[in-house]
Amino acid sequence: MIKKLEGEDLLIKWRKYRPSSRFPMVAVLDNIRSAYNVGSIFRTAECAYISKIILCGITPLPHNPKVEKTALGTNRVLPWEYFEDTLLAIKNLKKEGYQIGVLEITNQSLPIQSLSYNSFPLALVLGNEVTGVEERILREADFTLEIPLYGEKESLNVAVAFGVAIFLLIEKLRNHG
Amino acid sequence: MIKKLEGEDLLIKWRKYRPSSRFPMVAVLDNIRSAYNVGSIFRTAECAYISKIILCGITPLPHNPKVEKTALGTNRVLPWEYFEDTLLAIKNLKKEGYQIGVLEITNQSLPIQSLSYNSFPLALVLGNEVTGVEERILREADFTLEIPLYGEKESLNVAVAFGVAIFLLIEKLRNHG
Repeated sequence: MIKKLEGEDLLIKWRKYRPSSRFPMVAVLDNIRSAYNVGSIFRTAECAYISKIILCGITPLPHNPKVEKTALGTNRVLPWEYFEDTLLAIKNLKKEGYQIGVLEITNQSLPIQSLSYNSFPLALVLGNEVTGVEERILREADFTLEIPLYGEKESLNVAVAFGVAIFLLIEKLRNHG
Repeated sequence: MIKKLEGEDLLIKWRKYRPSSRFPMVAVLDNIRSAYNVGSIFRTAECAYISKIILCGITPLPHNPKVEKTALGTNRVLPWEYFEDTLLAIKNLKKEGYQIGVLEITNQSLPIQSLSYNSFPLALVLGNEVTGVEERILREADFTLEIPLYGEKESLNVAVAFGVAIFLLIEKLRNHG
């Protein structure tokens, strides 16, 4: 008979997916405005077991009470860094060997599903809820990525977009070799 | 040179993905508590171009101001219905030929990526933020589905989970035949 799992049974089933190390992806939050979105991104990022979140500019920090509210403790588990200038964060990531993928619809953006395994380790850059990623950051991108959307609305909420993007990217990593 | 798309250019690129009809999926919201989550689910559901949202029980309705706030107009575009009793909604959907997939970790739940094309048209059932999907609904499920999670947090926010699930399911539909 079908039944929900609780306690130890839930723990065993949930943990069976755990890889030996965090996925080779970091999220770069370029001047995200909403603390609730930041908290939600932390929660999703920990579920997705990515390596790190890099908060830039005006992005609310993990100890902000509104971040705490939607992060549900993940803000104290997932590694994070802060850079006042997003450009400096991007340049550091390049030195560390990350490729820079900006989530933004541009004249060159590729469907995120088309990314190849060679594009990792990947830094996924998410922009401000209203203005998107800054132009000077866009110029540093190795590629821009879009989530194909099908209906009468041209954008997802940034925290939802992050979830969709990161789980589609994980499929690339899991299905490789 | 890389540049963001605006106005007509954005419209053309974004609309190129539009299929000839809505995807054969409906979302069933079984007593979702948060109006913000409901609005966010509307926004994502319209971006994903699913057929309908079915609101059940205490789930806030589309004209609720808090739903409006996060739905950003999609609550006036996407078809929806309301059922006081989730069970009645499920039984109607079965008569209409939908298979019932409940998003819940159970002793029988399958990774959502493993679903086959034969499982559509699909009704994806999402449960209350705290208590999940009711047991009596679980018993009506053709299958239960889980989003594999990898880190130190055992659950996604329901609106994020909906986004991840629905876009992984769309990959099944797009990659078929």
